[in-house]
Amino acid sequence: MGQNTGVSLSDLVRTFGGELLGSGDRVFTGIGTLASAGPSEIAFLSNSKYRQQLSATRAGAVILGQADRDATLLPRIVADNPYAYQAKISTFFNPLQRPAAGIHPSAVVDESAQLGAGVAIGAHAVIGRGARIGDRAVIGAGCQVGESVTIGPESFLYPCVVVYRGCQIGARSILHAGVVIGSDGFGFAQDKEQWIKVPQTGRVICGDDVEIGANTTVDRGALDDTVIESGVKIDNLVHVAHNVRIGAHTAIAACAGIAGSAVIGKGCRIGGAAMIVGHIRIADGITVSPGTMATKSLTEPGTYSAIWAAEPHREWLKHAAQLRRMEELSNRVRELEKKLETLERKPS
Amino acid sequence: MGQNTGVSLSDLVRTFGGELLGSGDRVFTGIGTLASAGPSEIAFLSNSKYRQQLSATRAGAVILGQADRDATLLPRIVADNPYAYQAKISTFFNPLQRPAAGIHPSAVVDESAQLGAGVAIGAHAVIGRGARIGDRAVIGAGCQVGESVTIGPESFLYPCVVVYRGCQIGARSILHAGVVIGSDGFGFAQDKEQWIKVPQTGRVICGDDVEIGANTTVDRGALDDTVIESGVKIDNLVHVAHNVRIGAHTAIAACAGIAGSAVIGKGCRIGGAAMIVGHIRIADGITVSPGTMATKSLTEPGTYSAIWAAEPHREWLKHAAQLRRMEELSNRVRELEKKLETLERKPS
Amino acid sequence: MGQNTGVSLSDLVRTFGGELLGSGDRVFTGIGTLASAGPSEIAFLSNSKYRQQLSATRAGAVILGQADRDATLLPRIVADNPYAYQAKISTFFNPLQRPAAGIHPSAVVDESAQLGAGVAIGAHAVIGRGARIGDRAVIGAGCQVGESVTIGPESFLYPCVVVYRGCQIGARSILHAGVVIGSDGFGFAQDKEQWIKVPQTGRVICGDDVEIGANTTVDRGALDDTVIESGVKIDNLVHVAHNVRIGAHTAIAACAGIAGSAVIGKGCRIGGAAMIVGHIRIADGITVSPGTMATKSLTEPGTYSAIWAAEPHREWLKHAAQLRRMEELSNRVRELEKKLETLERKPS
Repeated sequence: MGQNTGVSLSDLVRTFGGELLGSGDRVFTGIGTLASAGPSEIAFLSNSKYRQQLSATRAGAVILGQADRDATLLPRIVADNPYAYQAKISTFFNPLQRPAAGIHPSAVVDESAQLGAGVAIGAHAVIGRGARIGDRAVIGAGCQVGESVTIGPESFLYPCVVVYRGCQIGARSILHAGVVIGSDGFGFAQDKEQWIKVPQTGRVICGDDVEIGANTTVDRGALDDTVIESGVKIDNLVHVAHNVRIGAHTAIAACAGIAGSAVIGKGCRIGGAAMIVGHIRIADGITVSPGTMATKSLTEPGTYSAIWAAEPHREWLKHAAQLRRMEELSNRVRELEKKLETLERKPS
Repeated sequence: MGQNTGVSLSDLVRTFGGELLGSGDRVFTGIGTLASAGPSEIAFLSNSKYRQQLSATRAGAVILGQADRDATLLPRIVADNPYAYQAKISTFFNPLQRPAAGIHPSAVVDESAQLGAGVAIGAHAVIGRGARIGDRAVIGAGCQVGESVTIGPESFLYPCVVVYRGCQIGARSILHAGVVIGSDGFGFAQDKEQWIKVPQTGRVICGDDVEIGANTTVDRGALDDTVIESGVKIDNLVHVAHNVRIGAHTAIAACAGIAGSAVIGKGCRIGGAAMIVGHIRIADGITVSPGTMATKSLTEPGTYSAIWAAEPHREWLKHAAQLRRMEELSNRVRELEKKLETLERKPS
Repeated sequence: MGQNTGVSLSDLVRTFGGELLGSGDRVFTGIGTLASAGPSEIAFLSNSKYRQQLSATRAGAVILGQADRDATLLPRIVADNPYAYQAKISTFFNPLQRPAAGIHPSAVVDESAQLGAGVAIGAHAVIGRGARIGDRAVIGAGCQVGESVTIGPESFLYPCVVVYRGCQIGARSILHAGVVIGSDGFGFAQDKEQWIKVPQTGRVICGDDVEIGANTTVDRGALDDTVIESGVKIDNLVHVAHNVRIGAHTAIAACAGIAGSAVIGKGCRIGGAAMIVGHIRIADGITVSPGTMATKSLTEPGTYSAIWAAEPHREWLKHAAQLRRMEELSNRVRELEKKLETLERKPS
């Protein structure tokens, strides 16, 4: 099964599992949505609310779940998790495009750096003293890989990623453009009116299969390390402070902020623009809703929220003002209660 | 009318319109505020609350609106929109400084890239295979222009901008330092405890006259494209997720986040740190206040808000606690209503 | 007292002050936490809640405060401010590692730039026309120092920092990777449906001993300058808009946003993800809590907040709904008050 060429449903089922219904011989060249796929493409139905699009789709085949197995006569693959299935075959059709192995002549690679087999290093990249780059890893143009940094095999750094001294990136990880790994944590001791910098001597240690979005920053630890476990996915413009620990397979959406020494469990979902304050623990599997600030450790499984939804401006002003009037309202209710008690006691 | 040299009010009126009152012959060399402009500079009055500064200004001339046409004896230009007028003449005095055309010897330009006339490419910039750079465009030092990217004529990329493969920037656009265009959207399918990456095969398509602030990120689409229409202005550190569509002339202030597949209409104003959740629509011309989260589609024109203003900490704690006591208060009111009903029914 | 070699408590007291208790002759090689330090390291106790760790520590010496002076028999230094003391000695053991002086051959330094003594300029850095780099300053790999920029002596720019034309960085400052200084402020004049760019002709002026975190952006002023006074510490991914003024020794945590022309006093603490709206003043010494939006000038000393803490999702929905029901509740209380008044007047 060669990459990027056509593939039949039979081939797909042999590789990725699932149940084939209808003819499996035809060759397909790509994947698309039910609304946009053409006859040589495979569409997918992973959300039942799009089921009515099945009748009109021009796709040549469909991936769908058990519940929808008979919802079309098109050749189809029935999968337990059709969204994950389409992710796999989409990856087959659209593999990560690795540049050819080799070191661009304009790159500056310290002679003590160790480069694995098949490594690609882009134009103007800089690889510091004692850095180790794993087999088939890609270091994009303009990346700055500091002294003694380790980049695991098959990891892919897009252009202009900066990894500070001593930090470790695991295998098969993806760092998008502008990511900064290992900048100093925000540690200062107050000495009268001044701030004295507390040296940040820890590192950032990332596991395998981590993906980090564009312009996200992960600070190095103060004394111990900042740790991102395997399988963690972080979106763009996220801040991860010093000594944070993020458990395996946790996903963090864009614009979130994780303050110092917070410990986030495995398999959590942190919504966009959510904030986790410092020194708290978020237990495994917890979801923090978008725009929500977790101010205390969350120990029970579940979803946690604190979101005010946008309202027409005047409505909002009225509602917000109510909160400030509640104390007065509460006093009036107490007054009513007293008066009523008096009335009730009064002999009729 | 040469650039950057002096200009008379008569010249300005000929070029930019408006009505000249007083002598139009003197030559001015720059623009300033009423408080700071000197005798060879032109000041402007666009906000009536600064009108009292007119009497003390040392400026040699003033731009003002119809309502203030007789508020000074200085030579002046009366304009319908004095703030827009001053923006135009300030641009005349302070044009975008384009470096001289030419390719810095340290830049790495793929031989298949097409460069228009008068293009300037800075030191250590990288231009990928098949990229097309329009006439008089400026690619700043250290920029990374990926394979098959299009940059429209007269666009200006400040240093260290990264544009991923296949994305398109229109004409006369400005991308500030650290902008990332076309990084992968945050698309993963959950497969048991793991996340499977969903290839992001769409692009980012930007119209003309777009400005994007420092370190802002715009993700490429998952299957279809992310689209930023002409005239859109985006501030610093904004996140635009995959498959978002932003309508023409919409302005988005700093630290805002636009989640996946959100559609924002034309002429909207999105406040700083506002958040737009995924898959919703914001109708044309809507304003979302700063720090406000839009959680549902907004279809009616107007301003939408959800802002809690900072209060002294103890006040805030009291107010926030009230909300949690409301249910109890509500129960007490119900109790009072029942008792009162009983009392009222009681024969006196 | 050589750097990075061992040091005795007696030496430390001679250099940094404090009171020595116990033997002062032994030589120590580093610093650690009470829990992690070994026999050749010095630990510190700056937070009384860790006092019980004193009995079990393997550290060879301890820094502690007056209140804890007799809490251990280990050799120790009693300091008024043990956290600041440990910051100083940690800096002694872990000084900022400056690369060797010199200009990397791949750097592009304009011949008109003035470089002080002992300057280090990294690979692929670009120094523009008329820039001035102070003595012993470090310009990291891939940095872009624009035309006429000033970098003060001993300042340290990590890789991929961009400083736009004309901006000034003071002495002994640290700019982390991806910082952008001097990008255009978000200034546009509306002209019918379009936005006309208002040229941003001011600069960014930073004092001495400023530290700015990774991927933070500071915009240049519109007409006047944006000013960051000496000793200011800014964390990662912070947005500082045009014409902001930040007073000396103020600290701003990650993901905060400071809108245009806001004036923040000296010695303030701005929490993570806090937002300061435009054109307001925050008085000296004020604390704005994390996630809090300051919408009006804050003139009285103290801490200001507006934070909703994450709750279990259903609880939150109930609480949030209450606010919208308050008007109705208020009406019911008014109704009760009227009825009760009628009842009270009724002759029994």
